[in-house]
Amino acid sequence: MNTYGERFRVTTYGESHGLAVGAIIDGCPAGIAIDMDAIASALARRRNEAPRQEVDEVRFLSGLKDGITLGTPIAFEIDNVQARPADYDVLQHCFRPGHADYTYQMKYGLRDHRGGGRASARETVARVVAGCIARQLMPEVDIAATVAIPLPDRDDDTRGGIVSCRIDGIPVGIGEPLFGKLGAQLAAAMMSIPSAIGFEMGSGFAAAGMYGSEFIDRWNPDGSTQTNHCGGVQGGISNGMPIEFRVAFHPVATLPQEVECLGDDGLMHPLSVGGRHDRCAVQRAPVIVEAMTALCLINYLL
Amino acid sequence: MNTYGERFRVTTYGESHGLAVGAIIDGCPAGIAIDMDAIASALARRRNEAPRQEVDEVRFLSGLKDGITLGTPIAFEIDNVQARPADYDVLQHCFRPGHADYTYQMKYGLRDHRGGGRASARETVARVVAGCIARQLMPEVDIAATVAIPLPDRDDDTRGGIVSCRIDGIPVGIGEPLFGKLGAQLAAAMMSIPSAIGFEMGSGFAAAGMYGSEFIDRWNPDGSTQTNHCGGVQGGISNGMPIEFRVAFHPVATLPQEVECLGDDGLMHPLSVGGRHDRCAVQRAPVIVEAMTALCLINYLL
Amino acid sequence: MNTYGERFRVTTYGESHGLAVGAIIDGCPAGIAIDMDAIASALARRRNEAPRQEVDEVRFLSGLKDGITLGTPIAFEIDNVQARPADYDVLQHCFRPGHADYTYQMKYGLRDHRGGGRASARETVARVVAGCIARQLMPEVDIAATVAIPLPDRDDDTRGGIVSCRIDGIPVGIGEPLFGKLGAQLAAAMMSIPSAIGFEMGSGFAAAGMYGSEFIDRWNPDGSTQTNHCGGVQGGISNGMPIEFRVAFHPVATLPQEVECLGDDGLMHPLSVGGRHDRCAVQRAPVIVEAMTALCLINYLL
Amino acid sequence: MNTYGERFRVTTYGESHGLAVGAIIDGCPAGIAIDMDAIASALARRRNEAPRQEVDEVRFLSGLKDGITLGTPIAFEIDNVQARPADYDVLQHCFRPGHADYTYQMKYGLRDHRGGGRASARETVARVVAGCIARQLMPEVDIAATVAIPLPDRDDDTRGGIVSCRIDGIPVGIGEPLFGKLGAQLAAAMMSIPSAIGFEMGSGFAAAGMYGSEFIDRWNPDGSTQTNHCGGVQGGISNGMPIEFRVAFHPVATLPQEVECLGDDGLMHPLSVGGRHDRCAVQRAPVIVEAMTALCLINYLL
Repeated sequence: MNTYGERFRVTTYGESHGLAVGAIIDGCPAGIAIDMDAIASALARRRNEAPRQEVDEVRFLSGLKDGITLGTPIAFEIDNVQARPADYDVLQHCFRPGHADYTYQMKYGLRDHRGGGRASARETVARVVAGCIARQLMPEVDIAATVAIPLPDRDDDTRGGIVSCRIDGIPVGIGEPLFGKLGAQLAAAMMSIPSAIGFEMGSGFAAAGMYGSEFIDRWNPDGSTQTNHCGGVQGGISNGMPIEFRVAFHPVATLPQEVECLGDDGLMHPLSVGGRHDRCAVQRAPVIVEAMTALCLINYLL
Repeated sequence: MNTYGERFRVTTYGESHGLAVGAIIDGCPAGIAIDMDAIASALARRRNEAPRQEVDEVRFLSGLKDGITLGTPIAFEIDNVQARPADYDVLQHCFRPGHADYTYQMKYGLRDHRGGGRASARETVARVVAGCIARQLMPEVDIAATVAIPLPDRDDDTRGGIVSCRIDGIPVGIGEPLFGKLGAQLAAAMMSIPSAIGFEMGSGFAAAGMYGSEFIDRWNPDGSTQTNHCGGVQGGISNGMPIEFRVAFHPVATLPQEVECLGDDGLMHPLSVGGRHDRCAVQRAPVIVEAMTALCLINYLL
Repeated sequence: MNTYGERFRVTTYGESHGLAVGAIIDGCPAGIAIDMDAIASALARRRNEAPRQEVDEVRFLSGLKDGITLGTPIAFEIDNVQARPADYDVLQHCFRPGHADYTYQMKYGLRDHRGGGRASARETVARVVAGCIARQLMPEVDIAATVAIPLPDRDDDTRGGIVSCRIDGIPVGIGEPLFGKLGAQLAAAMMSIPSAIGFEMGSGFAAAGMYGSEFIDRWNPDGSTQTNHCGGVQGGISNGMPIEFRVAFHPVATLPQEVECLGDDGLMHPLSVGGRHDRCAVQRAPVIVEAMTALCLINYLL
Repeated sequence: MNTYGERFRVTTYGESHGLAVGAIIDGCPAGIAIDMDAIASALARRRNEAPRQEVDEVRFLSGLKDGITLGTPIAFEIDNVQARPADYDVLQHCFRPGHADYTYQMKYGLRDHRGGGRASARETVARVVAGCIARQLMPEVDIAATVAIPLPDRDDDTRGGIVSCRIDGIPVGIGEPLFGKLGAQLAAAMMSIPSAIGFEMGSGFAAAGMYGSEFIDRWNPDGSTQTNHCGGVQGGISNGMPIEFRVAFHPVATLPQEVECLGDDGLMHPLSVGGRHDRCAVQRAPVIVEAMTALCLINYLL
């Protein structure tokens, strides 16, 4: 369940405040020169506005020779250098509202309470690295995500937002019928990102309020279409138009104001959560959306 | 790619106007008495308002002894009794707008042009049967989907709609972290349904426009929450509240009016499509949404 | 568990004396003309000396158009036309020695007692059809299996034997490291055949009694080797030499003499098993070995 | 292809002379106290007589809290502390006979030439650690492997051998039909071990030379059998008797005498291979056989 992909398989590990986060990539073709600068840039984009400014240095343990992929598993790790676990002692016996503290505790019977443990967005750092490598395997494909945040900033609160993503350079015929539909696989990839709560292709939810005569994308003689309400996918398979989708993110649940936590004593405990947190984590989301998009696509393209 | 699930694995087959559609279910536990009436009812619900009133008689070929599951693969088939392939001759060299005719042709180099072939919603009949069997394995879980169609009926047009689904009876702790998140897997399941174009959990896209203090679901002392904006899932794992999601369906592309088709001669061909089609296929969607929900959940619950 | 393969996926179903046996092939490329005569020939080879002379007519339900593959799932079925279930009534409460009667009953709590049910070699008919289609996808590969039976025939007994298989036409570089080793995957494929009890590559068990200086295959200047003790595979990957392996089959357990069966009453019951059975089923094995070899290889070659 | 298992999934990485070897275990249940001493003992058994006496210290990066499993991915790594890559410079342009140098080069176009790289038996250290953890999840199961080496030691040569393995404590009913047969999965697991070249259950190849009346295991009234020629498995499913199998290992190909290597210049190069190597690597095999047996079984038992 911590593995993504069938051909370019990424298995990630790591708790937010453990020793390290990382992953193994299995299925990466041999002979590719990894662009380490691109990885560093992507990780910098991911740290955008993050109070916890880690350097996120990536250490590769296997699968490379002189920076060239060997076709063998690529293992990499990033130390959690600024971990300050003591900030989180109070959470050992308390479940924050809107977090996975309670569900992990109930599922596993124990949890790493420090900063969300495995449920923390910290794990996305491994996805960003893997996604970066995937993008280097398909230079003809352009993936660009941008964020829109509907609400003005408020000192004591957090905000959600919507990330729009557009993919250019996908030829006709990518995707599979039924359960392998491009839209289905992209949806799963996006909804696996922390705080993602909605996904739509093309016109999406607006299409539910359209007549068929408004919705259908009429042909140009070259096989392109005059509109792109379907978002570039027909019957699960790309039609050569740009692929377009949007992902809704809810506001992060760690509020910069006091909240009531449920104690394992069954009582409520007012809590001002310490640690370092974002007021608008969705600004970090586009690079993660792009990474997961790349990881999704590379499995079709390899 | 025509297989759904890891533990309760459903592999479907069949073109819309071939001999039959059907599936093999692998991983169904032994000793379950299959409720054939429930299957017949679900298939009747699926035929709702469908001009093509097939009897949809399900023939089981294996995996049962006196109606009890053996633990071996359950194969079943439903004949396409009312197939009138000649209605579709005109489509042999034409690609309808808004359909998968073009993408299938480009991907595979040939296609069964009759009624959409494999891309037809006809294949969902196999999902409904399999989903029905899955539901019989988890009688404590209640899955109920309803449809809302925002637009009034119009004689010469088709309409989209939104299906809301609510699941009761899921205990705390179902779901997996990361790529196995309940929301991610439900999203993939729903987006695999023909005409599905959007998915959201709980408050979904509305949550993108909320402040954190509005969004977080505050605790009751018993571990339930006062609101359910998250849709019953935290960190990918059920929290014991009802699981709630919505699926957007675009209007079916087969319009009851003339449309321009792209010929494989590169020219446009005005076409009034024959065959039997729905003006509002989304009315058939709830039973399919329920089936795919059941197929998704049973893989977590087994 | 009834699915074989990652890319060319074959999911089989069917009990020995149920309505039919069959399979769905998912992942077969589009545009292939299926050679129905080759399938009929392979099935005839499989029936060699079999007292139960079924015609084994294959009915294709999907995935083909005018005999050409569509790239969609290929479903086929073969009726169990000569099923005489009454022959097996006595087995309803008895477990034969050397059969899976007991293990199925204990695992599932019930079983189809007629002719071994799902455990019968009857299910291999579906593998032979699927394997035949796989072979048609790789005409450059030659797979040839032959049988050796060490013991003379005896009227009232059954015999085992060894099937040797040689594959020509596999280029250097097919296979994967570690768990995807060609030898490992061939071993699993062969050991999944009913009555298979041993597998060896190249010199196999004899190699355990060799010195390294005897065993290593010395180079010719063109990259071929002077001997082929390793069986054409190094580090799990083909080296361009013929791939050679052997499969040991134990004698079938259905003896043409009275045996003691264990009743579900805990008592022994002398039994002269009726039904139609082989005295030397291993003569039917080569075509099954070839089929499973083809199914194994096609997953590497696609 | 570097992942083993469906439920207890082990993904390994690492070249023989890279920075580290290691693995991620996904699917390990929560709440298990890992016995670090058992891991150290198993690694010591694996180093038996190995000239390269590494300490093999295992560093756990995730998935544990105070030594207790969290249910999240367990990542661990073992440094290759004694790597002396310069020993292997000569192999950069030479392919040793009997090694995977040539097949890796042809498959991937490049390779880590140092000590076999990914093809080295060094990677089995990760399997031994993972297998050890798997064993701790099934304390009721006893797995014991022993080695027999048919040939006397010779100063300038290497030897093969046979490892016999016996599993006690497996109840009736473990295993799956068809492709999930216990014998098939054990065969694949064993044949994935470096130098494994043959596998047999129970009487194995000897059974091919037996009559059915000699082979079938006759009942005791309690459901056990008087003999165990089948090796404890009927129809792919355990029958409650001990599970018994044997694995043939060929002699390691790194001879302590000069051999002719094939240069990438197409010429032969006499080579006395340096580095540290075993004369009888099969003595290290039992602990690896036990580890792979445990990894195989745990996927059935979880």
